[in-house]
Amino acid sequence: MSSPQLAFSRSEFAERIEKTRKAMEDREVDVLIVSDPSNMAWLTGYDGWSFYVHQCVIVGPDGDPVWFGRDQDRNGARRTCFMSEDDMIGYPDHYVQSDVRHPMDFLAARLEERGWDKTRIGVEMDNYWYTAQAHASLRQHLPNAAFVNANSLVNWQRAVKSDQELLYMRRAARIVERMHQRIFDKVEPGIRKCDLVADIYDASLRFDDDLGFGGDYPAIVPLLPSGIDASAPHLTWSDEPLRLGEGTFFEIAGVYRRYHCPLSRTVFLGKPTETFLNAEKAVLEGMEAGLEMARAGNLCEDVANAFYGVLKKYGITKDNRTGYPIGLSYPPDWGERTMSLRPGDKSVLEENMTFHFMTGLWMEDWGFEITESLVIKEGGPECLANVPRKLFVKG
Amino acid sequence: MSSPQLAFSRSEFAERIEKTRKAMEDREVDVLIVSDPSNMAWLTGYDGWSFYVHQCVIVGPDGDPVWFGRDQDRNGARRTCFMSEDDMIGYPDHYVQSDVRHPMDFLAARLEERGWDKTRIGVEMDNYWYTAQAHASLRQHLPNAAFVNANSLVNWQRAVKSDQELLYMRRAARIVERMHQRIFDKVEPGIRKCDLVADIYDASLRFDDDLGFGGDYPAIVPLLPSGIDASAPHLTWSDEPLRLGEGTFFEIAGVYRRYHCPLSRTVFLGKPTETFLNAEKAVLEGMEAGLEMARAGNLCEDVANAFYGVLKKYGITKDNRTGYPIGLSYPPDWGERTMSLRPGDKSVLEENMTFHFMTGLWMEDWGFEITESLVIKEGGPECLANVPRKLFVKG
Repeated sequence: MSSPQLAFSRSEFAERIEKTRKAMEDREVDVLIVSDPSNMAWLTGYDGWSFYVHQCVIVGPDGDPVWFGRDQDRNGARRTCFMSEDDMIGYPDHYVQSDVRHPMDFLAARLEERGWDKTRIGVEMDNYWYTAQAHASLRQHLPNAAFVNANSLVNWQRAVKSDQELLYMRRAARIVERMHQRIFDKVEPGIRKCDLVADIYDASLRFDDDLGFGGDYPAIVPLLPSGIDASAPHLTWSDEPLRLGEGTFFEIAGVYRRYHCPLSRTVFLGKPTETFLNAEKAVLEGMEAGLEMARAGNLCEDVANAFYGVLKKYGITKDNRTGYPIGLSYPPDWGERTMSLRPGDKSVLEENMTFHFMTGLWMEDWGFEITESLVIKEGGPECLANVPRKLFVKG
Repeated sequence: MSSPQLAFSRSEFAERIEKTRKAMEDREVDVLIVSDPSNMAWLTGYDGWSFYVHQCVIVGPDGDPVWFGRDQDRNGARRTCFMSEDDMIGYPDHYVQSDVRHPMDFLAARLEERGWDKTRIGVEMDNYWYTAQAHASLRQHLPNAAFVNANSLVNWQRAVKSDQELLYMRRAARIVERMHQRIFDKVEPGIRKCDLVADIYDASLRFDDDLGFGGDYPAIVPLLPSGIDASAPHLTWSDEPLRLGEGTFFEIAGVYRRYHCPLSRTVFLGKPTETFLNAEKAVLEGMEAGLEMARAGNLCEDVANAFYGVLKKYGITKDNRTGYPIGLSYPPDWGERTMSLRPGDKSVLEENMTFHFMTGLWMEDWGFEITESLVIKEGGPECLANVPRKLFVKG
């Protein structure tokens, strides 16, 4: 069979694995079980919508990572991973969604075969794809192993992006620019949300002859709540029409080869209320203050405090975090789940870390989002996308 | 604030909760923690893309279910759930993706306040959204509770569909018919996969004036691998063109208000090979044999055995299950994760159960899918969608 079309060079994968092994050493982890699809893809190239069944990548003390998954998905591993087939283990189908046996029972036996059962095994304790039952099964079948919570061990290694990763994120930025342009072209009183979403997908996916590429699916579907529904940050669409006199925020991301560039803008149909004009002023000024602090050497909380400080001046309290790292992602989240832009987070910003500066406001009966995705640099950040930073008014 | 637009009557929610409490009694569960978003929605109406942070619905011994989630998502609960605000608990934002505190620490304290800490607590041990860490936190903070694995307790209650649910699934069927029509209209050698996916989304979403509704997002993105890539069941698209001489299967679902009608078809561009013609014959004949068995009173395995029996005659071995229940779903899976159409599954088919009869083949260097979604009836099944059941040939 033909070899897979890897999105990164073999040497880039080798560097990632080396960084990961170094972090494993620091945490005294001998064998790492990686259940997060983003981490799996980052380490091996594996790409597929198979995370609804148990699967993982195992990083042992030496050699290539080992892909483990449902047997029928082994063909997907062969099509997308750099490793040889010897390092791809498929479990039989009667382990899928069974009451009486668990895929991790099967994995435990394979770990034992490799002599990895008497080691310190790192597991991603709080990852969606590492369930309470998966952990119970491994503990039961590997009584001689010591389990270590290595929840975001790999996620942290992903924080600083390579040139190739930044290239993909800049492509994602071109896509999200196109998506917001389309929204502004199409949005008007009476347009149905489902139709607007069809346009958003269209702009996010189609091959662009000038750019030379097309888009991938986002880890979060488009969010576009209006009016009082925008008080809730995560409602999805209906088939109802947009109305004059309402604000709607559009939280969307462009995606290229699983790399995301999220970017939100808000549209007001009709004459914006004082509330929206005030929010626009506060967020834009606050964002400037935050961007000023978003540079290598500063802390995550510095960005948040600068932003919250300005909001306060405008009488607005935001009681949730104002950003998170971004990059390679699978559903349900395009964040990397390591740092947060919030008071108390003393993580140091480094060059080529990438963040979604998520300056959204979700208040009692309205919501407002104008956000930017950034690359941290020495002097100040690079904003990935170029979409006019303002409240859009139409209709 | 205005009340939520519920997709079901209050009495339907009441029946669901009663069924659930009955099942809890049978399993001696006093308090049920429901982490599966589909189960949460089915019990309360809750609808939002917030499952990337910890959340759940708690069914106590009496009263309405309690929504628990991130404080900023409480507005989403207010917009979509039937319960009063007293039964919506939000946790502060510094619990989100923190190394030092877990949302389940906060939940444990709330359960204690309600006097539910010394009870038998059911948890969905193998659900994506109930992590090893969530379980560890609850166990640590509720030392007097006994934990019971209630993994698919609610999922089983969802198996037999109500009239209103069937109405939604039939609407989803109209949508998937439109999607396959669009694929057939657009597919040709040279069309790029990303462009075809844009068309698939367009057909899945837009408001249809004749039908009177528009579509919702699928729990699995469109899958359309070609040639050897179709040997893998779960690869997503690229921006590469389709080629003459290759088969491509389209695994897609129409969705209306989170209710799914999955349906797959295969397109061959150019003159189909013997392999594809043989697969078509085998699958169509096998499907007829399976449909014949898919009626109330028969067992899940009866359908599978009938299908596998015909395949065998054609020299084809399928070593994975051939279907699963469907209905209300959120990512990452549109299956209900209870029954499987496979040998050994002795679950009895009941009237108004709904299944995706997933007759896909993923072989060494090709793949083939012609599937149907069904409603089980006394005499024989109702196929939800009406899409010509054949290998589509074009180009």
